[in-house]
Amino acid sequence: MIVFDGRLNESGTVAFDLSDRGLTLGDGLFETMLAVDRRVFRRVAHLDRMMGGAAAFAIPVTRERLESDLDLLLATLPDGVEVIRLAVTRGPGGRGLRRPETARPTVIVTHAPWSADPVMRPVRLVTSTIRRNETSPAARWKTSAYVDAIAALAEAEAKGADDALLLNMRGDVACTTSGNIFAIEGDVLLTPQTDDGILDGTTRGLVLELARTMGLRTKEMSLKPIEFATAEALFLTNSVRLINPVVGLDRRRHDAGHPVIGRLCDAIGARIAAECGRDPRAVG
Amino acid sequence: MIVFDGRLNESGTVAFDLSDRGLTLGDGLFETMLAVDRRVFRRVAHLDRMMGGAAAFAIPVTRERLESDLDLLLATLPDGVEVIRLAVTRGPGGRGLRRPETARPTVIVTHAPWSADPVMRPVRLVTSTIRRNETSPAARWKTSAYVDAIAALAEAEAKGADDALLLNMRGDVACTTSGNIFAIEGDVLLTPQTDDGILDGTTRGLVLELARTMGLRTKEMSLKPIEFATAEALFLTNSVRLINPVVGLDRRRHDAGHPVIGRLCDAIGARIAAECGRDPRAVG
Repeated sequence: MIVFDGRLNESGTVAFDLSDRGLTLGDGLFETMLAVDRRVFRRVAHLDRMMGGAAAFAIPVTRERLESDLDLLLATLPDGVEVIRLAVTRGPGGRGLRRPETARPTVIVTHAPWSADPVMRPVRLVTSTIRRNETSPAARWKTSAYVDAIAALAEAEAKGADDALLLNMRGDVACTTSGNIFAIEGDVLLTPQTDDGILDGTTRGLVLELARTMGLRTKEMSLKPIEFATAEALFLTNSVRLINPVVGLDRRRHDAGHPVIGRLCDAIGARIAAECGRDPRAVG
Repeated sequence: MIVFDGRLNESGTVAFDLSDRGLTLGDGLFETMLAVDRRVFRRVAHLDRMMGGAAAFAIPVTRERLESDLDLLLATLPDGVEVIRLAVTRGPGGRGLRRPETARPTVIVTHAPWSADPVMRPVRLVTSTIRRNETSPAARWKTSAYVDAIAALAEAEAKGADDALLLNMRGDVACTTSGNIFAIEGDVLLTPQTDDGILDGTTRGLVLELARTMGLRTKEMSLKPIEFATAEALFLTNSVRLINPVVGLDRRRHDAGHPVIGRLCDAIGARIAAECGRDPRAVG
């Protein structure tokens, strides 16, 4: 089942206006969320971010519409863990880049099965030749502009790695193609700040909060590649894979078994159980 | 009439797979071309660029398919001047950024009426706060990733300008949101080089060629904003609007009536007439 234009459809193939700017110009936003037994984890944070992006790009969608289309899909799901994708585009439009004066946004909600396998799976990173552009609004909001990330991932995989580390225009570390990055140094958890050209990830925010409850100090600050690469341990966060320890960055090896990483993952699992009723790692 | 999936459709609304990566991730390319009496101007250059992008992003579309889908649409057009949009996406795909091993690209050809009004219309530019990322493959190829350009145009229009001048990560001038830029300095025509984060425009290439036949020297080189802003005259090129003189950049005024700009526009018109039978400026 999918939701398109406020209605449920059995099939993912629908009558679609090919002038939709989401298709012609990537003029849209999306969120990828975990749902356990029809309850979306950090639902408020995801919808807040989408509404923030909609305001930044002047896409006139209402929160009520996002909420109701999301609920429409959730109600059709059986018990279990699902990945939910909520997308909004500016809707149909004419030729040219100028935003139409009256837009009729398109909302699409789809789901896919979730697997626990990638959670805590160690990943190897290589530094990408593609930089993250911290002056770009597309770097700060979750728009459909994923061409660079797709190319950076393909480049990393061609080099035998699992993901790419992207530096920003200043040469500081930013993020990977689909995750935020963290470094552990003693009792300090370090991560780039939001104006370093990163998406302000919902799991990133949660990890910063959980780390403080675990007695760690947290620092959001610009990090040079060498500071990052030489940290005690590194990990990634993502709404679907939750946490992945970094086992290698370029030619350097890292400690994927650092205890803080496992404790943070357990704390996320407990938080999901508290919010959605079950720890997905025990289900999926 | 539009062409979708190799077939003509009366309507632009078709049965569309919402998992198409052109819609979900902006994973596609397009070309915007001028057609006079069903003949596409610089057709070979446009198709060359699209095939170059398809190779760069590993989108397995054949030139034969692009040619035949384009011809299918062209055959339905009456005499006159039209803007043709040829688009290809990677096609339907599952979740995640990884390119599917076997892609089935989607090809879409649409058209819209052309007007001669914007040709040679003087434009005011403001320098954008959004930079062009010359490390990004999306900056070199015509992908659907237009979120930054849309935002930069909106920002420029909010400041009372017609378009935005984008600098690259090094701080050199790159292009506007939908055009290449040129500076005239005596008998020299200057324009950024292709590794400055610009699209290698088909009209850009033509203007460089025509300028040489007119006795001008041409230089493709990185240009500092101050070198650019203080040139004798500035203009933009674009496949649809052909040439636009720049009348102002930020607080500086420029000579929109520089004779070289008009001569280049006339030479483009003559070239279109030679290739397509008529000068569109006399038609549209």
